Amino acid sequence: MAVTLNPLTGQLSGPEVTESRRTVAALKGYFRDEAARAQMDQATEAYRVLAYEPRPEGQEGAVCCATTFLAPGCVGDEYFLTRGHFHAAQDRPELEVTVAGEGALILMSEDRRTWMEPMRAGSVHHVPPRTAHRVANIGEAPLVFVSYWPSETGHDYDTIARLGFGARLRRVGGAPALIVEEHPVPP
Amino acid sequence: MAVTLNPLTGQLSGPEVTESRRTVAALKGYFRDEAARAQMDQATEAYRVLAYEPRPEGQEGAVCCATTFLAPGCVGDEYFLTRGHFHAAQDRPELEVTVAGEGALILMSEDRRTWMEPMRAGSVHHVPPRTAHRVANIGEAPLVFVSYWPSETGHDYDTIARLGFGARLRRVGGAPALIVEEHPVPP
Repeated sequence: MAVTLNPLTGQLSGPEVTESRRTVAALKGYFRDEAARAQMDQATEAYRVLAYEPRPEGQEGAVCCATTFLAPGCVGDEYFLTRGHFHAAQDRPELEVTVAGEGALILMSEDRRTWMEPMRAGSVHHVPPRTAHRVANIGEAPLVFVSYWPSETGHDYDTIARLGFGARLRRVGGAPALIVEEHPVPP
Repeated sequence: MAVTLNPLTGQLSGPEVTESRRTVAALKGYFRDEAARAQMDQATEAYRVLAYEPRPEGQEGAVCCATTFLAPGCVGDEYFLTRGHFHAAQDRPELEVTVAGEGALILMSEDRRTWMEPMRAGSVHHVPPRTAHRVANIGEAPLVFVSYWPSETGHDYDTIARLGFGARLRRVGGAPALIVEEHPVPP
């Protein structure tokens, strides 16, 4: 009956835990090099999310948690990443705790200023309100992290699907570099 | 600069992490057998809390986390426990994740109905709104758990300091038993 979180693996277990997966196919439009993405095996899993939400999304009354397992890899010169989102309730925050791997938390304000924080086992990250956030795996192993957020938060994936982030995390000379997009989105 | 959470030990580290301690002296009035508590070494540490609060208590905009290290031991036939609290913002929830040890999460509704959930390494616990909560260590080793809550929540320790819980977790025949208080508090 009870929900458990394995502290070493990030595995969330229990009958109330839900699972979702994002394949390379589901990430169409998220990478700079769409041709490279289209040539990959579309069924390859980019990431998997296990979530425990004691209250339904958008309804007050719980702190939710979810573990994301993000595969290593690149699409062109961009690291595998999560789609990223603003919060539907824009004044709601989030907390990320890295379990394993090496990654980057990419954050963007509403005026599209974009910055990043390095993620490594044990790192804890405050995501302020009104800040879009996505995660990239810059290592060779799966990146595993746990997110905590209030249940009323809700997710706005649409803004990022349409406009992207203000900068992309690209592999330049073998190392990650956050590079501002060439074509700023008009206001 | 960054805050880290050791997944195995629960240790929270970083310049923004605060520490507080509760000694046996500070738990005066919380146990049934006050004479037994008074005879103990008053400087003995019952528990220690390391907290990361990106926003000040009572102010919106962050998910906070804190690790509690609760020593094993008894006062009379009652296990060492945290003082317990309602939330000042009564509609705010909390989430507990056990790191190590063996404990009991004791919960109480506003009408003083009291129940418990077993805590063991990895167990995850939803604390609903309007529900007082405290933790008892029923094992031989330190009980370590991490709490997550929205920064606007605030803490009401006073109600529990005055009225206690509706039941006490006592050691009966070597095992924990949740025993309803003999003298219910008048409404």
